[in-house]
Amino acid sequence: MSDFALHPRLAADTAFIVDWPLCRILLMNDQRFHWLILVPRVPDASELYDLSSDDQAAAIKEASRAGASLKAWSGAVKINIAALGNMVPQLHIHVIARKVGDAAWPAPVWSATGSSIPYPDPNAVVSELSRML
Amino acid sequence: MSDFALHPRLAADTAFIVDWPLCRILLMNDQRFHWLILVPRVPDASELYDLSSDDQAAAIKEASRAGASLKAWSGAVKINIAALGNMVPQLHIHVIARKVGDAAWPAPVWSATGSSIPYPDPNAVVSELSRML
Repeated sequence: MSDFALHPRLAADTAFIVDWPLCRILLMNDQRFHWLILVPRVPDASELYDLSSDDQAAAIKEASRAGASLKAWSGAVKINIAALGNMVPQLHIHVIARKVGDAAWPAPVWSATGSSIPYPDPNAVVSELSRML
Repeated sequence: MSDFALHPRLAADTAFIVDWPLCRILLMNDQRFHWLILVPRVPDASELYDLSSDDQAAAIKEASRAGASLKAWSGAVKINIAALGNMVPQLHIHVIARKVGDAAWPAPVWSATGSSIPYPDPNAVVSELSRML
């Protein structure tokens, strides 16, 4: 995995939390939602089927683990998991804690009106998530 | 899996294509997009992490297989895969072929304005997809 490099758009929108066996775990810097991005550290992967079978299994295992932890920690009612990539081709998996009445509920977060609201101190959230995940 | 029953909302919005080892494969009845719904035939599953590890691996394997086939068949530029479930609690996985200029591009399909447009003859599409998948 020596050639892995995070896409600049993902780097700009997120803060690094931790590396798991397959994925880099990032915090989306938008305080409207508790929102993680998981990026498999596999060069040139764009679709889930670009991953090997073992990496596919690892990806869903890590996304499920992140989702379960995030739901317990945030008190969310539902976890949304999605690999879209229409604008950023590097394979990345959204794991988002959803609450009734949040900025997009019950629509997907991408339907929220308005812009993202950065955390005043993303490092504090990263620190808390590092202990929780 | 004897207690599995498809959620009425999913039943109303889709047409049956085929059962794979884990998932029921459905066609979303909206001709604006080539859009499959995969429903693991596991009673009471809502989140991906409600599935066993083996079923998680099977789910991503089947979603990847469906996505690869759908992309090749449709000429899409990107496959979107998502498990949301904010409105329908039964675990279901969207597998959607996306094309530049489609009714929502580059936003997720749920951001499309307007309503779904049913196929005039969904059975014809089901028949074609049955051979392709």
